[in-house]
Amino acid sequence: MLNGEKKMERPFRWAMVGGGRLGQVGYKHRIGALRDNTAYQLVAGAFDIEPARGKDFGINIGVDEERCYPDYKTMFTKEALRADGIEVVSIATPNGTHYEICKAALEAGLHVICEKPLFFTSEEGEEIKALAEEKGKIVGVTYGFSGNQMLLQMRAMIEQGLIGDIRVVDLEYTHGFNATDKSDKVSEAQKWRVDPKIAGPSFVLGDLSTHTYYMSQLIMPNMKISRLLCDRQSFISSRAPLEDNAFVLMQYENGAVGRLWTSSINAGCMDGHRIRIVGSKASLEWWDSKPGELRYEVQGEPIQTLIRAMPYLDDLCNADERLGALHQEGLSESWANIYLKIALAIDAKNRNDEETLKNLIYPDIDAGINGIRWIENCVRSAENGAAWVEFENKKSISI
Amino acid sequence: MLNGEKKMERPFRWAMVGGGRLGQVGYKHRIGALRDNTAYQLVAGAFDIEPARGKDFGINIGVDEERCYPDYKTMFTKEALRADGIEVVSIATPNGTHYEICKAALEAGLHVICEKPLFFTSEEGEEIKALAEEKGKIVGVTYGFSGNQMLLQMRAMIEQGLIGDIRVVDLEYTHGFNATDKSDKVSEAQKWRVDPKIAGPSFVLGDLSTHTYYMSQLIMPNMKISRLLCDRQSFISSRAPLEDNAFVLMQYENGAVGRLWTSSINAGCMDGHRIRIVGSKASLEWWDSKPGELRYEVQGEPIQTLIRAMPYLDDLCNADERLGALHQEGLSESWANIYLKIALAIDAKNRNDEETLKNLIYPDIDAGINGIRWIENCVRSAENGAAWVEFENKKSISI
Amino acid sequence: MLNGEKKMERPFRWAMVGGGRLGQVGYKHRIGALRDNTAYQLVAGAFDIEPARGKDFGINIGVDEERCYPDYKTMFTKEALRADGIEVVSIATPNGTHYEICKAALEAGLHVICEKPLFFTSEEGEEIKALAEEKGKIVGVTYGFSGNQMLLQMRAMIEQGLIGDIRVVDLEYTHGFNATDKSDKVSEAQKWRVDPKIAGPSFVLGDLSTHTYYMSQLIMPNMKISRLLCDRQSFISSRAPLEDNAFVLMQYENGAVGRLWTSSINAGCMDGHRIRIVGSKASLEWWDSKPGELRYEVQGEPIQTLIRAMPYLDDLCNADERLGALHQEGLSESWANIYLKIALAIDAKNRNDEETLKNLIYPDIDAGINGIRWIENCVRSAENGAAWVEFENKKSISI
Amino acid sequence: MLNGEKKMERPFRWAMVGGGRLGQVGYKHRIGALRDNTAYQLVAGAFDIEPARGKDFGINIGVDEERCYPDYKTMFTKEALRADGIEVVSIATPNGTHYEICKAALEAGLHVICEKPLFFTSEEGEEIKALAEEKGKIVGVTYGFSGNQMLLQMRAMIEQGLIGDIRVVDLEYTHGFNATDKSDKVSEAQKWRVDPKIAGPSFVLGDLSTHTYYMSQLIMPNMKISRLLCDRQSFISSRAPLEDNAFVLMQYENGAVGRLWTSSINAGCMDGHRIRIVGSKASLEWWDSKPGELRYEVQGEPIQTLIRAMPYLDDLCNADERLGALHQEGLSESWANIYLKIALAIDAKNRNDEETLKNLIYPDIDAGINGIRWIENCVRSAENGAAWVEFENKKSISI
Repeated sequence: MLNGEKKMERPFRWAMVGGGRLGQVGYKHRIGALRDNTAYQLVAGAFDIEPARGKDFGINIGVDEERCYPDYKTMFTKEALRADGIEVVSIATPNGTHYEICKAALEAGLHVICEKPLFFTSEEGEEIKALAEEKGKIVGVTYGFSGNQMLLQMRAMIEQGLIGDIRVVDLEYTHGFNATDKSDKVSEAQKWRVDPKIAGPSFVLGDLSTHTYYMSQLIMPNMKISRLLCDRQSFISSRAPLEDNAFVLMQYENGAVGRLWTSSINAGCMDGHRIRIVGSKASLEWWDSKPGELRYEVQGEPIQTLIRAMPYLDDLCNADERLGALHQEGLSESWANIYLKIALAIDAKNRNDEETLKNLIYPDIDAGINGIRWIENCVRSAENGAAWVEFENKKSISI
Repeated sequence: MLNGEKKMERPFRWAMVGGGRLGQVGYKHRIGALRDNTAYQLVAGAFDIEPARGKDFGINIGVDEERCYPDYKTMFTKEALRADGIEVVSIATPNGTHYEICKAALEAGLHVICEKPLFFTSEEGEEIKALAEEKGKIVGVTYGFSGNQMLLQMRAMIEQGLIGDIRVVDLEYTHGFNATDKSDKVSEAQKWRVDPKIAGPSFVLGDLSTHTYYMSQLIMPNMKISRLLCDRQSFISSRAPLEDNAFVLMQYENGAVGRLWTSSINAGCMDGHRIRIVGSKASLEWWDSKPGELRYEVQGEPIQTLIRAMPYLDDLCNADERLGALHQEGLSESWANIYLKIALAIDAKNRNDEETLKNLIYPDIDAGINGIRWIENCVRSAENGAAWVEFENKKSISI
Repeated sequence: MLNGEKKMERPFRWAMVGGGRLGQVGYKHRIGALRDNTAYQLVAGAFDIEPARGKDFGINIGVDEERCYPDYKTMFTKEALRADGIEVVSIATPNGTHYEICKAALEAGLHVICEKPLFFTSEEGEEIKALAEEKGKIVGVTYGFSGNQMLLQMRAMIEQGLIGDIRVVDLEYTHGFNATDKSDKVSEAQKWRVDPKIAGPSFVLGDLSTHTYYMSQLIMPNMKISRLLCDRQSFISSRAPLEDNAFVLMQYENGAVGRLWTSSINAGCMDGHRIRIVGSKASLEWWDSKPGELRYEVQGEPIQTLIRAMPYLDDLCNADERLGALHQEGLSESWANIYLKIALAIDAKNRNDEETLKNLIYPDIDAGINGIRWIENCVRSAENGAAWVEFENKKSISI
Repeated sequence: MLNGEKKMERPFRWAMVGGGRLGQVGYKHRIGALRDNTAYQLVAGAFDIEPARGKDFGINIGVDEERCYPDYKTMFTKEALRADGIEVVSIATPNGTHYEICKAALEAGLHVICEKPLFFTSEEGEEIKALAEEKGKIVGVTYGFSGNQMLLQMRAMIEQGLIGDIRVVDLEYTHGFNATDKSDKVSEAQKWRVDPKIAGPSFVLGDLSTHTYYMSQLIMPNMKISRLLCDRQSFISSRAPLEDNAFVLMQYENGAVGRLWTSSINAGCMDGHRIRIVGSKASLEWWDSKPGELRYEVQGEPIQTLIRAMPYLDDLCNADERLGALHQEGLSESWANIYLKIALAIDAKNRNDEETLKNLIYPDIDAGINGIRWIENCVRSAENGAAWVEFENKKSISI
């Protein structure tokens, strides 16, 4: 159980690119990183494309005025000159800028934490991975929902054979907030997401389903997709070629099958993030409607509901517990877990502690690349008339 | 609101073929038909493939010994000789016998009520339809779950434009009762279902998904599938070529898309019958977990839960209400509604009342044929490597 | 599992007093009694205070015109003259008439099935009980929700010690349908319920909570109340002295405590019938929101949800199963179970089979008297300023 | 919507008494206070009754070694000598020490934030209130669940008349974690809670129900209890005279009635915190099973479920929103809201800004005293044989 006591010698000096006042995601990075003030300290930032607004914001959240920079290049240059310069940077900018900022950060000798989808192409991913290895740095990816420890409970139970052989994987991440084109026009946080130049080759496949795809890999690290088929639509036609709805069918190497639905036009849906894994003996289901519960359904037995923080859960799960039973955790704890594990990875990397790194389960550069590949394969299928395609360039994820 | 008062001059003299002691489905036919004793009277039967057991059973449920027949042919012959002979017969036998019994019944001048899936091929369906028309008889099909009046509420709301244009259709009918091959070997009610000679070209597609497909047509009579793709599996390999799991993707003529999951290996699932219709304004969802509720989710408004029997429901829905608010209805009321409407159709047919027939919403021969076509298209896609196929021989269903 | 096959030589000839077109309760009696046509046949009735309407109604539900009587006295007299006269009568009239009709029926040599609350006073109950014993007849009471077999599952589990010693009993039966005085004025089914001359000394305590109190006794036959306290209110003041809301606190002989809330002004509540029994090891909960489920919560273990019809349930429970898993049962099955058991009691009584009678679990005359005593004690407490009162005249219920 | 930007000139220098490694509550204070690092900075502490453990812990959470004090007296003395000494202190120690520490803190010129129940007697409460006023300091009370903004939504809707006149108040806060005496013996966090010398005159009434009672006042500031009755039990007999289960009935001045159940022996219950307010038109319900939802049940209309963060919610509610729709908040946000409002109160108090203070809704000293009075009245009733007692010393709470 975590209570905020330090896990490393001292907190890392941390900065952000993006994540300023206009969007919602920056706050999530900060509540994740700064949960206990023992893993990171926010000391600098280039928070906004608009420098004055960014500086005002930075001061308001407690950053020294002189370390509120107009842009990331200035920040990397100036911070490199300081004895107490930044060590880690988080990138919370629109997708199309991730690659160049990430590359610049690594070249500036920084560890990197980046929003998903990581880049536009897996080639960029491999290049950055090689650069990170060369520089001896960590690249973490903020699949923000994946820090929920109930997913680790699923992983442990599956690994222990409690559901038998996996047969069906049912994934969904949908909502209805963009069921009209209104938000495309008025919301700064939304409009770039439907512009392929900034968002990349997909909208909801990248924005939503990469979370769920990573979560499925976290839960079932041994399951490899062999083929998939994706049918995507632009119900708001101005979004074409980017999709606001997609169905994906998957076939796995072990004979299992899967499906995924992702959508931003599922009108009225407020709890559309679900993962159900069906095995030969039992099923496991997580649903964000009650994110601290798991359903464990053994065929022929009463349905079991496992509750967060209870002693009967696996150690792998309870190691990430913070608030204890009866005390609801939420997304902020999920982000805190991810950020803490990335800090542990950075700490281990700095110490060349490969043993620790090998055993840490967190969204690393491979998870980021796998997310890009997921999108690439889906888009390739969709562009071929929603045809079955071999899943290309499969790599095992290091989780 | 229905209270059992008669809707026609007198109850029809009714018989069953099959539906005896060993299976569960016969009881459902009887509770449907005999709910109020004002639409049907059970006067004869050939209840069992084993004549002695069938006679014993018939006597036990109150049929005169002399009208408990050893087989359907004898029954049709003998009853035709009586002044008080049967007028309607229900067929609750394994799939492979439906066609011949149905044909014989019509030729004997009887109205017919038949289990789903109706026959093996749509050609058989068209032939029987022509015969029924020639004979002036009704053929009803017992999609037993479709009598739930909340489906009519969905139909009314969609027709009134309350959800806007339909965009996504999400259908599921799954359970986990046949997650192992055990029941195939021991259960009389199960073993024939995985034998293609008796079950026809599908297992769960026919056994489960035809219900849900019909319910979707009942709810959205104007939605036509243009193309579909079906990937089916036999997780219990001895069931091949019949599937125990299938995913279907649909594309509709209006640009909407859909998906359906049907399975008998969804381990532990006890409430896997769901219908969600997403429109441009709102979504409607029915789930058998709470069969007397509908979720009506208007994007940007509080989620609404509509409850059975409440005065705010549409007249089309409340016309089928029986027990009133706070009083749970279940599957027996659904069957009762279907049987009552088929009785009304028979009564209208007998009186050549085409106006009434035109306005009655019930699972008629077209609904039966459409169910066969659904299976045919799914199987054709599956056998072509889970490829997209044009939906063939579309006909509007007369609901 | 029940499938409609006969449990006795032939169905009883059955009549109703009341239960005509204007109310909802008569239909429930008929669907309970006539579920399988093997326990009862409806052959006569005095269905309505208004003879012409009653006759029209009786004919409409299939009763011979000549056996549709203008009043119960005429019916009892005329039927007594027939060789095929009625054997059992159900009384579904306003409370204030139960006693006299019940007495007349017993004196006419009939078995009786009566609505709750049985009579106004427990003295009347004891008198009728003595008369029934003298006449060798059964008096059953239609606590219509108590036929749900999941209650028997609770009984079996408690008896087997699966929850440990009972500590807390939490009962609720509330709804909001009479949150205004409108229905008092316009609804025939409601207006008499708030008139003490016809309804007796209570409104919701009798109308609602007697069901739940009986269900608690069915589940925990060994638990005896030693003291209780009742605070009742008339939120619609024209209902005074009758209550439309009441809180009751109970203390049991074994040291357990309990509480009950009953109300018709719980605005908007559509699922307010709940029973939770807390033991030293575990709790059991039934909620009409999902009447086919039980929650079994063992402290320190995953929460279990038991589902109707599953083989892991106790034989006592599954003996009353009809539709099988995945097939929703509702209130009609509950009534059918009660009516069938009363028929079995009548059959046993007619055969002087005391062994069968002793083992039958059904709402008998003692259950009816206990319901009256419940009301009497609640009212006595309420009239003493919501003071604690000793629970008087406790008698063990013969379940 | 809150995003961490500062609400006051600079964060307050903050310290804790108690809240060290062995208990769970200290972490909640820290995640509440330090959420955004713009309201408080943790600079000192006397974290543990065992000084060495306390110092080690303090260092581990980032406090300077020299400001990790062996006890609160030393801390108050030493910090008073520093130019950068503490300004606010939180007290997270067992109940029996609150009074003396609180008094000492105020006398040392500190603002105070204290755990509930505040003190043993309301006289102590009044004395401390007078002292705080004299010293010009704030005393806040950590009713940790009360910061959930959906409670403010309830308050706004009730104030706007959306449920009509309040008739019934139904409160529950129960769990089953202490259903056996095991935790009394082994858990440091539990054992003092059943010792009247340290816990005061109650166990669950103080430990659990004071939260819920305050939340009810927050929601319905105009509702005053006139009489109550409390029946309490010690199911684990070694806990006597302290109760581990209690039922309370309330009568309000406006004619409404209420009830409350609090328990630590509700075996298996993991979601037993509920508030239901029934009005003459509609009901509102909050349940910690889904803490971001409200049910709004207007009699005769579809049931509405209001979801956190949606634009249709009242400004009063959404002012405390942080993560946005689809992003689950939990208990940490509730604590953060409370701590932020107390910081705003301190800031206003320091500036003599009475206007701001008057409008701030937060758990202040009056809320703390009202909690004590609630316990006093409940205990007085219980000790009089669970008799009705006039609610004494009612004071309006300043919310």
